[in-house]
Amino acid sequence: MIPVSQQLAIGIDIGGTNTVFGIVDHRGEIKYRGAISTKKHQTIDTFIDELYVAMAPAIEHVGGVEHIKGMGIGAPNGNYYTGTIDYAPNLNWKGIIPLAKIINDKFNLPAALTNDANAAAVGEMMYGAAKGMRDFIMITLGTGVGSGIVINGQLVYGHDGFAGELGHTIVIPGGRKHWSTGVHGCLEAYTSATGVRLTALELMEKNPETDTLLRNYPENQIDSRVVYDCAIQGDEMAKEVYRYTGEILGLALANAVMFSSPAAIILFGGLCKAGDLIMAPTKEHMEKNLLTIFQNKVKLIYSELKEADAAILGASALVWELK
Amino acid sequence: MIPVSQQLAIGIDIGGTNTVFGIVDHRGEIKYRGAISTKKHQTIDTFIDELYVAMAPAIEHVGGVEHIKGMGIGAPNGNYYTGTIDYAPNLNWKGIIPLAKIINDKFNLPAALTNDANAAAVGEMMYGAAKGMRDFIMITLGTGVGSGIVINGQLVYGHDGFAGELGHTIVIPGGRKHWSTGVHGCLEAYTSATGVRLTALELMEKNPETDTLLRNYPENQIDSRVVYDCAIQGDEMAKEVYRYTGEILGLALANAVMFSSPAAIILFGGLCKAGDLIMAPTKEHMEKNLLTIFQNKVKLIYSELKEADAAILGASALVWELK
Repeated sequence: MIPVSQQLAIGIDIGGTNTVFGIVDHRGEIKYRGAISTKKHQTIDTFIDELYVAMAPAIEHVGGVEHIKGMGIGAPNGNYYTGTIDYAPNLNWKGIIPLAKIINDKFNLPAALTNDANAAAVGEMMYGAAKGMRDFIMITLGTGVGSGIVINGQLVYGHDGFAGELGHTIVIPGGRKHWSTGVHGCLEAYTSATGVRLTALELMEKNPETDTLLRNYPENQIDSRVVYDCAIQGDEMAKEVYRYTGEILGLALANAVMFSSPAAIILFGGLCKAGDLIMAPTKEHMEKNLLTIFQNKVKLIYSELKEADAAILGASALVWELK
Repeated sequence: MIPVSQQLAIGIDIGGTNTVFGIVDHRGEIKYRGAISTKKHQTIDTFIDELYVAMAPAIEHVGGVEHIKGMGIGAPNGNYYTGTIDYAPNLNWKGIIPLAKIINDKFNLPAALTNDANAAAVGEMMYGAAKGMRDFIMITLGTGVGSGIVINGQLVYGHDGFAGELGHTIVIPGGRKHWSTGVHGCLEAYTSATGVRLTALELMEKNPETDTLLRNYPENQIDSRVVYDCAIQGDEMAKEVYRYTGEILGLALANAVMFSSPAAIILFGGLCKAGDLIMAPTKEHMEKNLLTIFQNKVKLIYSELKEADAAILGASALVWELK
């Protein structure tokens, strides 16, 4: 029997393009890591077969399966209660995929599954900026906007396992149409990388006379990175893109604070690279929209997990919570 | 020693005008009830003195203080963690009032305090429509809009005890200014009794040519009750007032569902008397604004507590959770 303190956890993060995995110890050190393509697999069966082949040497490397407590998986639309991926829009596998069971059958290890933002929140609580916190909200600002909510020290799954979709809450009724859901004015339509690109295009179109470095790029190359590059060169319109993004994010965070009153909100993902360009207006508008009793109390901070490691760490952290 | 099943709980609800109290058994039966004025007391000391005098015969009536497990109090801005009332705008007592301690010193009974909407949620879980539910949200639609959120079977207090202020979340950025907080576009500005009155006045002013029964009333008499009376007589503008109120409430509920994915949302308070006039558009717009994975899952139901009893029952229910 391996002592608990020496047990290891496997973390798997399934993205639309690639799947990354790692074997992690109690302190959050990744002992071994690897990746396979998600996209090339039209069926879950061939995906699992390749994953098994890719992971077998890793498992041997750490001394065999008896050293491993279980497998945690972060996946789009992953449901913790049922262990299924339900109708994930960005995966080839359609319908309801009983992934935890498939993994369990193939690897003979207990498996827990949730979505990637929830996994990131558990990872942050176990290894990162939320260590010891009982109430916090993790917001991932990447291609999309995800969230993981921790209340009383527990991740909030809701009655059906799908809680925490802050990116799809409506902040501007009748506002910008979401490219995938068709809903108008949701947070993700503004504060994701895609949202930043759309805000830049809108500002350029609305202000054709205004000089901006953004016009040096062809339209299809305008992305959150280009906007950042222009902004740090002092370009006013590019700075305005991030200011506006922060204004909307701050409003949404104020609403989240008045709902669950967390000790901290932790920001994670690509847009965080913009630093104070987005953080300063976000904080300003969060505070401005808060009821007095909530003002100047909530810490707005960055994730302490390295972005390259966070997905694996978050997924692996689910394992330590397995009964 | 009194057996636990025969213990009683005192519930006290402190409102801006009156304070009601009752002695309640485990099944939610109110054995004794009474009330005193809140408003006439300029200081907390004279208030507590009168409360003590008013309750002494009630406590004797049930056999003495040894039959009572504790006292639960619902009060505006009541904080569960600190046992204090903090800067309640509608009470004469300013600043921070250490009410749980004051009650404990005076009555020699353990005391727990929270705000009225949180107390209502605990009451609903203990005695009402949420019996056995682990995830639900209670929305009180009265003079103001309050909420109590239960996740994993626990009331959500947040890191500071103030969670659950859904009425102050912003649903229409830049929208109607709140009469008390000055914030624009919060839920309470639209879906409280005051909000219904303001919507009616706005509609009348914007449509001066439209015939409506509402014009039979002087402006200062237009309230949610008058709008209801006109609506059930078939008045189109009055019906539109409730439809619009439901549209905004439905949007806010959709956002709440995408946050914490409750099994049910329970509506309580004066506006519920409008029945389907408000319930039908609320349900329609909640479903319409939900991401597909959340649709047609959440029960939208009325409280099962009698309105006259709910405040006492809710406050008393806090006692059963005392350690």
